Amino acid sequence: MAEQYNQPLGGNEMPRFGGPGTMMRLPAASSAKGLDACFVGIPLDIGTSNRSGTRYGPRQIRQESVMIRPYNMATRAAPFDSLQFADLGDVPINTFNLPENVGIIRGAIAGILAEDCIPLTLGGDHTISYPILQAMAERHGPVALIHIDAHADINDTMFGEKIAHGTPFRRAYEDGCLKPDLVFQIGLRGTGYTAEDFDWSRARGFTVVPAEECWHKSLAPLIAGIRERIGGHKTYLSFDIDSLDPAYAPGTGTPEIGGLTSMQAIELIRGCRGLDIVGADLVEVSPPFDTTGTTAITAANLLFEMACVLPGVAYR
Amino acid sequence: MAEQYNQPLGGNEMPRFGGPGTMMRLPAASSAKGLDACFVGIPLDIGTSNRSGTRYGPRQIRQESVMIRPYNMATRAAPFDSLQFADLGDVPINTFNLPENVGIIRGAIAGILAEDCIPLTLGGDHTISYPILQAMAERHGPVALIHIDAHADINDTMFGEKIAHGTPFRRAYEDGCLKPDLVFQIGLRGTGYTAEDFDWSRARGFTVVPAEECWHKSLAPLIAGIRERIGGHKTYLSFDIDSLDPAYAPGTGTPEIGGLTSMQAIELIRGCRGLDIVGADLVEVSPPFDTTGTTAITAANLLFEMACVLPGVAYR
Amino acid sequence: MAEQYNQPLGGNEMPRFGGPGTMMRLPAASSAKGLDACFVGIPLDIGTSNRSGTRYGPRQIRQESVMIRPYNMATRAAPFDSLQFADLGDVPINTFNLPENVGIIRGAIAGILAEDCIPLTLGGDHTISYPILQAMAERHGPVALIHIDAHADINDTMFGEKIAHGTPFRRAYEDGCLKPDLVFQIGLRGTGYTAEDFDWSRARGFTVVPAEECWHKSLAPLIAGIRERIGGHKTYLSFDIDSLDPAYAPGTGTPEIGGLTSMQAIELIRGCRGLDIVGADLVEVSPPFDTTGTTAITAANLLFEMACVLPGVAYR
Amino acid sequence: MAEQYNQPLGGNEMPRFGGPGTMMRLPAASSAKGLDACFVGIPLDIGTSNRSGTRYGPRQIRQESVMIRPYNMATRAAPFDSLQFADLGDVPINTFNLPENVGIIRGAIAGILAEDCIPLTLGGDHTISYPILQAMAERHGPVALIHIDAHADINDTMFGEKIAHGTPFRRAYEDGCLKPDLVFQIGLRGTGYTAEDFDWSRARGFTVVPAEECWHKSLAPLIAGIRERIGGHKTYLSFDIDSLDPAYAPGTGTPEIGGLTSMQAIELIRGCRGLDIVGADLVEVSPPFDTTGTTAITAANLLFEMACVLPGVAYR
Amino acid sequence: MAEQYNQPLGGNEMPRFGGPGTMMRLPAASSAKGLDACFVGIPLDIGTSNRSGTRYGPRQIRQESVMIRPYNMATRAAPFDSLQFADLGDVPINTFNLPENVGIIRGAIAGILAEDCIPLTLGGDHTISYPILQAMAERHGPVALIHIDAHADINDTMFGEKIAHGTPFRRAYEDGCLKPDLVFQIGLRGTGYTAEDFDWSRARGFTVVPAEECWHKSLAPLIAGIRERIGGHKTYLSFDIDSLDPAYAPGTGTPEIGGLTSMQAIELIRGCRGLDIVGADLVEVSPPFDTTGTTAITAANLLFEMACVLPGVAYR
Amino acid sequence: MAEQYNQPLGGNEMPRFGGPGTMMRLPAASSAKGLDACFVGIPLDIGTSNRSGTRYGPRQIRQESVMIRPYNMATRAAPFDSLQFADLGDVPINTFNLPENVGIIRGAIAGILAEDCIPLTLGGDHTISYPILQAMAERHGPVALIHIDAHADINDTMFGEKIAHGTPFRRAYEDGCLKPDLVFQIGLRGTGYTAEDFDWSRARGFTVVPAEECWHKSLAPLIAGIRERIGGHKTYLSFDIDSLDPAYAPGTGTPEIGGLTSMQAIELIRGCRGLDIVGADLVEVSPPFDTTGTTAITAANLLFEMACVLPGVAYR
Repeated sequence: MAEQYNQPLGGNEMPRFGGPGTMMRLPAASSAKGLDACFVGIPLDIGTSNRSGTRYGPRQIRQESVMIRPYNMATRAAPFDSLQFADLGDVPINTFNLPENVGIIRGAIAGILAEDCIPLTLGGDHTISYPILQAMAERHGPVALIHIDAHADINDTMFGEKIAHGTPFRRAYEDGCLKPDLVFQIGLRGTGYTAEDFDWSRARGFTVVPAEECWHKSLAPLIAGIRERIGGHKTYLSFDIDSLDPAYAPGTGTPEIGGLTSMQAIELIRGCRGLDIVGADLVEVSPPFDTTGTTAITAANLLFEMACVLPGVAYR
Repeated sequence: MAEQYNQPLGGNEMPRFGGPGTMMRLPAASSAKGLDACFVGIPLDIGTSNRSGTRYGPRQIRQESVMIRPYNMATRAAPFDSLQFADLGDVPINTFNLPENVGIIRGAIAGILAEDCIPLTLGGDHTISYPILQAMAERHGPVALIHIDAHADINDTMFGEKIAHGTPFRRAYEDGCLKPDLVFQIGLRGTGYTAEDFDWSRARGFTVVPAEECWHKSLAPLIAGIRERIGGHKTYLSFDIDSLDPAYAPGTGTPEIGGLTSMQAIELIRGCRGLDIVGADLVEVSPPFDTTGTTAITAANLLFEMACVLPGVAYR
Repeated sequence: MAEQYNQPLGGNEMPRFGGPGTMMRLPAASSAKGLDACFVGIPLDIGTSNRSGTRYGPRQIRQESVMIRPYNMATRAAPFDSLQFADLGDVPINTFNLPENVGIIRGAIAGILAEDCIPLTLGGDHTISYPILQAMAERHGPVALIHIDAHADINDTMFGEKIAHGTPFRRAYEDGCLKPDLVFQIGLRGTGYTAEDFDWSRARGFTVVPAEECWHKSLAPLIAGIRERIGGHKTYLSFDIDSLDPAYAPGTGTPEIGGLTSMQAIELIRGCRGLDIVGADLVEVSPPFDTTGTTAITAANLLFEMACVLPGVAYR
Repeated sequence: MAEQYNQPLGGNEMPRFGGPGTMMRLPAASSAKGLDACFVGIPLDIGTSNRSGTRYGPRQIRQESVMIRPYNMATRAAPFDSLQFADLGDVPINTFNLPENVGIIRGAIAGILAEDCIPLTLGGDHTISYPILQAMAERHGPVALIHIDAHADINDTMFGEKIAHGTPFRRAYEDGCLKPDLVFQIGLRGTGYTAEDFDWSRARGFTVVPAEECWHKSLAPLIAGIRERIGGHKTYLSFDIDSLDPAYAPGTGTPEIGGLTSMQAIELIRGCRGLDIVGADLVEVSPPFDTTGTTAITAANLLFEMACVLPGVAYR
Repeated sequence: MAEQYNQPLGGNEMPRFGGPGTMMRLPAASSAKGLDACFVGIPLDIGTSNRSGTRYGPRQIRQESVMIRPYNMATRAAPFDSLQFADLGDVPINTFNLPENVGIIRGAIAGILAEDCIPLTLGGDHTISYPILQAMAERHGPVALIHIDAHADINDTMFGEKIAHGTPFRRAYEDGCLKPDLVFQIGLRGTGYTAEDFDWSRARGFTVVPAEECWHKSLAPLIAGIRERIGGHKTYLSFDIDSLDPAYAPGTGTPEIGGLTSMQAIELIRGCRGLDIVGADLVEVSPPFDTTGTTAITAANLLFEMACVLPGVAYR
Repeated sequence: MAEQYNQPLGGNEMPRFGGPGTMMRLPAASSAKGLDACFVGIPLDIGTSNRSGTRYGPRQIRQESVMIRPYNMATRAAPFDSLQFADLGDVPINTFNLPENVGIIRGAIAGILAEDCIPLTLGGDHTISYPILQAMAERHGPVALIHIDAHADINDTMFGEKIAHGTPFRRAYEDGCLKPDLVFQIGLRGTGYTAEDFDWSRARGFTVVPAEECWHKSLAPLIAGIRERIGGHKTYLSFDIDSLDPAYAPGTGTPEIGGLTSMQAIELIRGCRGLDIVGADLVEVSPPFDTTGTTAITAANLLFEMACVLPGVAYR
């Protein structure tokens, strides 16, 4: 059956260090037409407040995705047996004008959604989740949100600006893109401008799960509970790589210690199986600070795990 | 209320990658007069026995402290709401003559203590804890010690020398700076010159908690027990970054595998709340081996956590 | 008693950053004659399928072994008090012709075994385990195998070739080197060419312990059970550093997220005490991707832990 | 005489790896009042078109300036014997809105010039030279310009935007900030969108000296000729570190091979002695790509050389 | 006119850090049909004798080629105005069996030549030049050779093997692929197994230009003389990046100090204009040792310079 | 003839990335008895004033020496055909007490000289040249000195200390170890505490050749003149790797821009042929800042070039 769907280029056809620079060495496509799901890059980093470098995130994630084979050994998911995937390349963002990108990105994602294709987005900084959520809401109405991150990203402004990587979920909320009681923010921690920083989320009805509540244990029960609460609602998944502890993902711009482990990250994504996922992103990978490639490898694998829990994926 | 105390320079006033090179971008001060607590650097590395580089520790910790905001989201501690902090800069150590620094450092710390200011010291190699403890004892009498480290640092000599980074607690004990039954050494592990290396500590009455006893679990109960045992005694906290596993803190000179996690480190420091902390240090960060900055980021955050448990800190 | 056995050069005789480039700064030897156990390097990397660099593994592991002192503080093992160790240097592999090395390595290991010396091998990529197991079986008959790895390494071919780092245990099984019901593969995970990739192992009678079964807990019970099942059978231990999560061992060629921790790795090796270990290897350390040295430090310490559980080691 | 002027903190008072994080460890100042010249940072990188990271330029240049002593051994210049210098810290740029910074930077530089203080600016990407030149022209009228760079930076727009690091000299020309016949662009090379890219400069009357004309020889004669042509006109010096060959300055965002050497860079700056320099900048240092610190060290030394040729500097 | 030919994707259409992973972001092609020239990668590194890593050469060169615009500012060459270029991707080499690749590569190149397309090859180690020259000779008869390298690569065997990165020109000579009196080896230096190592070349009639004869001067006269001697003969250009001094190209496996500069490399390639170039390669870029990207940037630019001197290129 | 002398282990016997960790993979020796010349390491870095790390110099230089073959292709020198060489390992310096090392090093070198063996020393920081020169003078009387360096290293004290890496030649002069009129300091540059810093040298009769006099040309004439002036006097050669420009040698602790090139360094050493060299050192290689290995490779090759100009070396 696999023959009818695009397949990642295998290591027995082309050595893993060669071949095309696409995600998992899948075929490239210039439009979402005919695709069930796609990988798409948004190489933005001018929304970052501390260390930059996420502009190289999509390229590096693709480069480190070369080792991923088509089957998930733990869950037996076989995404390329039942869905048509391709790599759509990058959204041509304007790297000199941050606000301008809201429209560019919203339009690009809307174009993908118009083809009934699910976008799995390679960031780029977290600014991109705002226009993506705009496009999602435009298509699907307000969505449930699973937001895994060290930071709540619900500032009103940063340095007086409305658009930046610390504000996307405030903006998306204000625009009515979210179902507040079905917003889950997991892994929050660190320091704040006030001790009440996370209370804005709680006051809106969001569920906040601080990192401290995640330590030393499996997160399978947590995500199972969330899955139950969301039920059949359309769900967007936004995964900020800085949700992970810097031991697991050093290559990011605003690292906070005491974060999730890779094992917990995998549990959270695998636990999304059964949800009606309409899109997902993996953001904030900053290759200049990822000296061993570990962060990009982690990102690539988490994107594959996301592909494994999309609606319609076959399991072997 | 915050206005009356020095505040870290915020990200909305100056981008986090700019501004002064002080700890948390606090104001610099040239004397401890009027301060409740201070950050002070001791850029020593000529006491190291293996990989060097801790001379750059204070600079790098300060550089990676830029992202820390004033409020602790997990504990709601607000150190800058009730204590006057500043960065005192570096102690002008003599980098060509190790023993000479015992006097230099002792004098510098004594000068801080004379102003009723609590020093939070950025190392530098672990040699510095000896003269710091001399100054502590001179001011406060023998102190309780919470010593988090991969190594006991209780050698009599190294290469025949009395002063080195493997001897400070032997020297401090001999000088009567410590209350032996209130000395807790947490995280010890690795290899030794004899199988009995840690027995010297035990024979003095120290409590030794090997790393193996810390694996796979929360350390909150451990530190709670220690806190109870110490009670109201004046307590010094010495945190060697190599207590952490190299996955969490690769940038150090004598790494030992199988160490603590960042989560456990945070638990240990937060668990000190309520103790009468008279000073603390964070030592052995070696930037040349910290290729992603993670070690320095961890150190900066742990120093902030130390600030959060000082006597008199407000909680929101 | 120690005087009669070779000892690692101590830090009080020569600073740890100086001295000979041998494992643990032990004496070098040009033959296994008179040795009970030895360290030997096999600097092979032309069997790797993704990132290369393991050719530098032996050199780097030795370089980062300098801090290891002779006594194991946790277990009180004293390997250098009762066994004669030395560093035999490297096997002169042919770096331009992969298949040729099967014979070269088999011969070199056979020569060591002929002297009743237990080889602890520093890889090199995992290809080397096949000829080592050939030599083991030739000497001891089929052996039990504890294989700790992210990958099963039981492919029939890679790019059409029988000899590569993904095939050694298939080859060793075919050659009758293994006791299939006493083969334990621990830590397997990631993605596969089919969802059934690990089933070949199971069908042969191997025990497969996926990484997911190892998460968030001590592995002491697991290894205790394995030890019991193996009993008195001669046992070979093959440790691929990529069994560890990339947070703990980034410097390797085919990293997979969600792996073991260093703590679990130590537990597994310490749990081998009492088995009749006839040899062991530590493979797949790739220094170019080990920017902080952590991977090589980990490898060096795990090799020391292996030395600590060899038959005949004294405990203090 | 030196006593009356601010001096760099010397290595015999504080080890070079300690002390304040200011340029050359000079005193910090919060205003230009009373200063003859100052160092000031502009940590901007959102104007970059390829590799980012210049936001960390000012911090890294300061960090690597610690070794610079007060006297120039080759020229016997003694800038701190006759001019009052300080480090003014960083301009608080808006990192989320590029165009906004034109006003912010222009205002900051105008404030310095209003105190009759000469700014030596640490970039930051080359975008900053436009508002600096605006401030210069506002104060002094149109200026002569010595522009050392791999690129002409005279694009009309980049991705449709008027403000970016490839447009500053077009903008400055349009605003009448420059004396076109006294504009010298040295080191230009590489590839272009058309073969005529540099002709815009020539058509305006600028003198273009391609890198190829600089190879294999001293540039002292070149700069002597320029000095003669400029005579007594007020002159601004803009030095893009990518004028240097990447062998000499790898840490930059748009490197072009076949560039100047450090020796030639020193010759060019020393050759400016005698000109009426009203300001200078050193831009495009990108620390994430400066793995050894060489680029920042070079930048720091070139800034010192600039200080040595300011009007009024004493020579010993 | 440009519209009829493939063009590199420009920075005003897609930021340079995004877009496809092809050389210069040219269109990819799966066959040479209809192309005048192509870029093709051969990700081989199992022929290397010292540091490995060239398997990542093609990927890294492409990644660092993103800044190259279509016009050569110094020579006004406009390769994309008159020739049809594309990126053919990588040759699927067998990474487990070195000798096998001779046939694979020869076949791949022959397929390109069969379409009257000139291959510009991205290595990979120098082993690849042997099968490429076989294909060249098969198509064109023996060719003239300009070989720029630190090493003569004319060993008979390495470790007893005929195929390795130190033997290609011996093999090519033996196979009659070269016109010996039109072979020019430029940049040779370093140490040898005998003092006569380079005499084999001379004895065959090759012209050897040691690096020492290249120091401190322009190489334009040298290449002009070579051009004159070669005249109208079909010529192959093989450029080993280690011909450059490690200051200019550190990212390679067998670096030798005292080499060429980038400026000289550019002179040599530009000096080939007018020759009947039938193919060229750029080999031995090893990204793991290219910590700043400079080596790959240099390689990418030199490949562009090669494209600029192909027969039929327009000049503006 | 070569058979009677120790030979570097060749690449056809053992791959270059394997084999012993000695200089050039020569045999190790524990005494100088029977040797004509030796390599010896002094892993000292506690005499450094800025960036540390030279303690790893000897190890890294040896590691990067593996590619050096026995014959000098440019000069046809064959050092291993006529002199008996070995690697004596490292001097066991006291890393906790700088002054103590003067005696340790002097004694170690004296022991070598007592066997009529010429020491080629791998530093370590420049402090070591003082005790080496003491031993030289003790054996040979005052010597001529060729000192290639960015710094004069003739401070009276550093931070009040007489022994440090900035004072060795002052101390050696005071002790009468030098023939002042035959002291040549080449490559001096940078900044000073006073404009007269180098005048102390000149006042003693030393010849100072600033770096500026070396730019853009061959140094063969310079060294020829020096050779003539020295004539038959016994000569010591001290080569500080920071004499090189940081483009050529970034891995050092006190880099100064505008330095020598590798080509010039080779010229200087080759030009020493004919002098009565009694010893030489290569100091200040700091591996933590040598991210690509280039600095250590350069050092290893320069040490080989030194070996090639020792009295008695055969030329082929």
